[in-house]
Amino acid sequence: MPTSSNGVAATLERGSLARLMRARSVAIVGASNSNPWSMLVASTLKALAFPGPVHLINKRGSPALGRETMASCTAIGEPVDAAFIVVPAEGVGDALRDMAEAGIRQGVLVTSGFAETGAEGAAEQARVFALARELGLTLLGPNSVGFANFVDRVGLGALPLRLPVTVGGVGVVSQSGATCGQMVRFAQQQDIGLSYAIATGNEAMVDLADLVDFLAGDEATRAIAVFAETIRSPERFAEGALRALVAGKPLAVLKVGRGALSAEVAKAHTGALVGDDRVFDAVCRELGVIRVDSLELLLQTSQLLASTGRLNGKGFAVASISGGACEMTADLGEAAGVRFTRLAAPTLERLGAALPAFGHANNPLDVTGDAMRDPTLFERSLQTMGEDPDVGLLGCIFDLPIGDSDVSPVTKVMLENIARGLAAAPCPTVLIEQTLGNRGVAGAAVIKDLGLPVVIGGIDYAMRAVGHAMQWSRNAVRPVVPPAPPPAPHVGGRPVSERQVLDYLGSRGVPVISATVAATRDQAVAAARAVDGPVVLKILSPDIQHKTEAGGLALDLADDAAVAAAFDAIMASVALKVPGARIEGVVVSPMRRGGVELLVGVARDPSWGLVMALGLGGVWVELLNEAALGRLPVTPDQAGELIGQTRAGILLAGYRGAQAADLDAVRKAIAAIGDAALALGPDLMSLEVNPLWVSGGAVECLDALAIWKD
Amino acid sequence: MPTSSNGVAATLERGSLARLMRARSVAIVGASNSNPWSMLVASTLKALAFPGPVHLINKRGSPALGRETMASCTAIGEPVDAAFIVVPAEGVGDALRDMAEAGIRQGVLVTSGFAETGAEGAAEQARVFALARELGLTLLGPNSVGFANFVDRVGLGALPLRLPVTVGGVGVVSQSGATCGQMVRFAQQQDIGLSYAIATGNEAMVDLADLVDFLAGDEATRAIAVFAETIRSPERFAEGALRALVAGKPLAVLKVGRGALSAEVAKAHTGALVGDDRVFDAVCRELGVIRVDSLELLLQTSQLLASTGRLNGKGFAVASISGGACEMTADLGEAAGVRFTRLAAPTLERLGAALPAFGHANNPLDVTGDAMRDPTLFERSLQTMGEDPDVGLLGCIFDLPIGDSDVSPVTKVMLENIARGLAAAPCPTVLIEQTLGNRGVAGAAVIKDLGLPVVIGGIDYAMRAVGHAMQWSRNAVRPVVPPAPPPAPHVGGRPVSERQVLDYLGSRGVPVISATVAATRDQAVAAARAVDGPVVLKILSPDIQHKTEAGGLALDLADDAAVAAAFDAIMASVALKVPGARIEGVVVSPMRRGGVELLVGVARDPSWGLVMALGLGGVWVELLNEAALGRLPVTPDQAGELIGQTRAGILLAGYRGAQAADLDAVRKAIAAIGDAALALGPDLMSLEVNPLWVSGGAVECLDALAIWKD
Repeated sequence: MPTSSNGVAATLERGSLARLMRARSVAIVGASNSNPWSMLVASTLKALAFPGPVHLINKRGSPALGRETMASCTAIGEPVDAAFIVVPAEGVGDALRDMAEAGIRQGVLVTSGFAETGAEGAAEQARVFALARELGLTLLGPNSVGFANFVDRVGLGALPLRLPVTVGGVGVVSQSGATCGQMVRFAQQQDIGLSYAIATGNEAMVDLADLVDFLAGDEATRAIAVFAETIRSPERFAEGALRALVAGKPLAVLKVGRGALSAEVAKAHTGALVGDDRVFDAVCRELGVIRVDSLELLLQTSQLLASTGRLNGKGFAVASISGGACEMTADLGEAAGVRFTRLAAPTLERLGAALPAFGHANNPLDVTGDAMRDPTLFERSLQTMGEDPDVGLLGCIFDLPIGDSDVSPVTKVMLENIARGLAAAPCPTVLIEQTLGNRGVAGAAVIKDLGLPVVIGGIDYAMRAVGHAMQWSRNAVRPVVPPAPPPAPHVGGRPVSERQVLDYLGSRGVPVISATVAATRDQAVAAARAVDGPVVLKILSPDIQHKTEAGGLALDLADDAAVAAAFDAIMASVALKVPGARIEGVVVSPMRRGGVELLVGVARDPSWGLVMALGLGGVWVELLNEAALGRLPVTPDQAGELIGQTRAGILLAGYRGAQAADLDAVRKAIAAIGDAALALGPDLMSLEVNPLWVSGGAVECLDALAIWKD
Repeated sequence: MPTSSNGVAATLERGSLARLMRARSVAIVGASNSNPWSMLVASTLKALAFPGPVHLINKRGSPALGRETMASCTAIGEPVDAAFIVVPAEGVGDALRDMAEAGIRQGVLVTSGFAETGAEGAAEQARVFALARELGLTLLGPNSVGFANFVDRVGLGALPLRLPVTVGGVGVVSQSGATCGQMVRFAQQQDIGLSYAIATGNEAMVDLADLVDFLAGDEATRAIAVFAETIRSPERFAEGALRALVAGKPLAVLKVGRGALSAEVAKAHTGALVGDDRVFDAVCRELGVIRVDSLELLLQTSQLLASTGRLNGKGFAVASISGGACEMTADLGEAAGVRFTRLAAPTLERLGAALPAFGHANNPLDVTGDAMRDPTLFERSLQTMGEDPDVGLLGCIFDLPIGDSDVSPVTKVMLENIARGLAAAPCPTVLIEQTLGNRGVAGAAVIKDLGLPVVIGGIDYAMRAVGHAMQWSRNAVRPVVPPAPPPAPHVGGRPVSERQVLDYLGSRGVPVISATVAATRDQAVAAARAVDGPVVLKILSPDIQHKTEAGGLALDLADDAAVAAAFDAIMASVALKVPGARIEGVVVSPMRRGGVELLVGVARDPSWGLVMALGLGGVWVELLNEAALGRLPVTPDQAGELIGQTRAGILLAGYRGAQAADLDAVRKAIAAIGDAALALGPDLMSLEVNPLWVSGGAVECLDALAIWKD
């Protein structure tokens, strides 16, 4: 298992990472004809036409890669920005000392055989990186295939790259070297422009969070695409994600470990602590991170947003020559959350005038087969749609020519009309192919010649990418709320029993059901008299956890006689079932029924800290298997969002004529529960209020449970 | 809108459709250098190397397509199987008469300008096809781009084909010509073998159902892939689907119109259940039809099953050199319903021995980067996994070389090992690429050279295809139950009022709550006394539909006084609110509470007839937005399946300690409600029981409503 680290941001300034990523002179330490990694990196540097000097270091000074080598970095005799270290594991220490002595402060450690091989390797990794820190080095890896910076043509990577790669705005980061290569491969097939491709390896020092932070600040990068297996430094990842959001750069993440099976597989091969995956979903929602499930969608969504930038909240309008494509687009778009423009009456009128008699002005728009005869139908329709006041993204569905073949004259004229129609739009535009296929030579030429916008295929992935882009764009305008100051820590003893927890919550401003302690039958009757309506009696004893099993609970007691009898019955039962228990009396509370019962739970996630889970309580919570999650602290506004994510929102709004709840009070109570949990400090494992009872304006915790470490 | 038709099966024998699809001699009627369709079909025939004679017919006898022509079909002077008719709309009648006179009984009518253009065109289409029927012709179209039969090399189609197309087992049918072309294009990019590609056009005579039936009986076709906009003859479509199922041929359908947007127009003029796409989902489930949403998945699922055949119910096992790919496969597979094999202990042991020390025997299996050094790891691992007793489908994730480039020696050796490992498996196998890309020349050569099994990409679509294949394979072994004989029709008057409907249901064996009619206060009290527990009074009047609004309902009456008072109150309220209503008294029934309330609704779908909707009643039905649908008749077993599709199944099973229901009685009651609805004949629009009350062994209809045509 990899050792955890505080990442480079905690130990080194951002500048050192930038110097690594934009190195202007490099050394390959361990260059040798028998070392495939050194050959790969050399060919990558060559293929990228790296403009700076490349020094080859070979301990024995033997020639390598067709050139002379030097025996050490210190022999170079001029400043070098970064080293690519491919020496065997046992030689890494010496190599690091040599590079430090030569003043090389940055590097990629390709060498494997460290934490990924087990406990022994992890210990060795810890030793090596302690040395690296001591020497003031910034290292990517170990067990990293390195990176390519396509903008500055720095290829310190042994990625299986087939060049050329189109240079563009998508920065790729991957915790898997193989997947990094696959992402570049798919980008090439789709002609998706990349700024960086970075494989993080074991992340002993520089981790995902550092690289997200770096790319968020990188000028050439307009969207960040991440493949992640584990988030090693959650807090810094969150900071990086927010930095990207503030910079207007979408961050899309494919994080594996969603299902039970992959969690198992991951555990086996990385030993990473795998929490409940839905927590990461909630974190993504909070941070405006786009979460996707496939590499295709990861890159296509990034590609789309790198081209369009933030969308303005208006709808999507799209035209096609195929009615079938229009219908598929409508179906898949709706399912993916794409908002389609309801075209305005004047737009429909103009489209109607342009279309043949049997056409229908609509969105998605079928321009009809008449566009074969009169290709200007495409240009005119697209121009008209683009001018509609509610169109924020304009698309056209049309397939580019396959492979290397020439474009047929008919197709060419149609594409020219489409390009003009899209270019006339005052909003971002996209060309969508019906099915996903490689961008062939002919297709790439068309895109270039006609200055076509971003091209995505097929309709399925394109609609999901547009859906994500719209969702992200909505999130991106949400003001980033500075985190509330943490609540004052609790100073007394740990609340443990139900009574203690309820009293504690009450002291923290959480509305709790009224309760009177009664030590005797007469006190119980008197307390019950003071309550309007029937009451509940609960045994009060530090030694009794399971009240129901002990016979320590009596419900719906309507008069003195019932209360007195219940008191006696409880005392008799408890004496029988839990002999020796210290009995402090009973708690008398009003009986509650009807209303809506919420479950408000707080639990500690190993990565993300205290997380709130909110849903309908009682029979509902398991039957619906529905809970909204959010990291603490949760503000009242955020509590309202959580409510809205579950069916609790429907019931609280006064479903089917039932009285609507005082939502403001509910939101405040939920936020107060979260703050109360936070104030209990790091030993609290979970705190659950079930139910939080809501009926009209009344909001009350009826029951609560806290679980502590140990 | 196209006119409906009874399809060819109703009017012509299957043989004529087969003669069209496998024509050995053809005529192009309307051949002309100025007619692009005639040029397209001629080049398709040529490209497919159609082995039979092609006759060109041009009314004026002018040369066309570089050859002499004849002025009419009758001038051909030898038997011809099929005509491809591309004359202008006004000349179609003459062309049909000519071809009939020449003894040509089959044809494709390409000519457009018929029903697709509006009411006038539809009328003209009706006239033309009345003539065709009179002449005994079998015609595909009109407005059809025709078809290609790749097996027999018959290309009676103006499909935008780029040849060659790989010949294989997937038969494609599309109601959109453009989409048909797109499906062929995608199949070519993916090297998916096709048997037929057929565009149905306006379906004035031959429709989708006929072609599904044809392909189900076609020897070369092993899977059927359908793009559908509408099912014109539901009953025959169902017959064709069952024929395919019985023949062991998967039928996959992409039917558009899922969402509100695409169903909007239909809904506007046809009413509530119309365009409820969930009915088609239910029909697909019933008929074992695979329903998909994207063209990619439509063809890939068909491709997979055409290669593997029905899977045997065992699990899926898969290996990869990339840990990231393993985790994505696990996540996406679980989400898609793929059952992964839990490898047996001996399998895990053998894998453990084969892997390096830091590897983990698992499924999905990461063979580790050691496979670069020792590619036999692939062969050994795959062979071991294939021999596991619970593996029914064995996969390997590996990307084929891109484009036309040669395979690198390292990749080649790995692929050879993979091919050997897969070939050794006693079960079907599949190679999966990480992302979806075209099958390049190099990749296609590898597949052929190594005899690799079916290749699918990327992991996302591949897992969904495997999920569909597993689901279909489970359905395909379910015995096809012959439909139960229809229930004896109801012979009395229409049950209209609640009382009549409940009485009718009771007469049909549906358990209905006991009820006594009481005309007077004293009768009501007496009837209530005969009931164990509190009662309910309901006004009985043919003139009062809304009992609650009229004050005609009283609940939970526990004693004589309450019953008497309620009787008086009801009478007073009704007299006030519905003056002049004919009052027959009140109905006295036991008061029911607790238990589980089901909603059992039956509604008439314009395509599929009476459809049952089943779900939890009361507040649940709308809050959950969950109903299971099934076409009538529904057997008790099928009723049980419907229950299992909703959360009602959880509650009825005795959720959280509540008493479990008598499921057998519930299933029977539901089936009886369906039969009772069926017996009411074609004028019944809907019948709803809400609730069907279930408590332990008790099952009772408490309330019912019937709606009739007009």
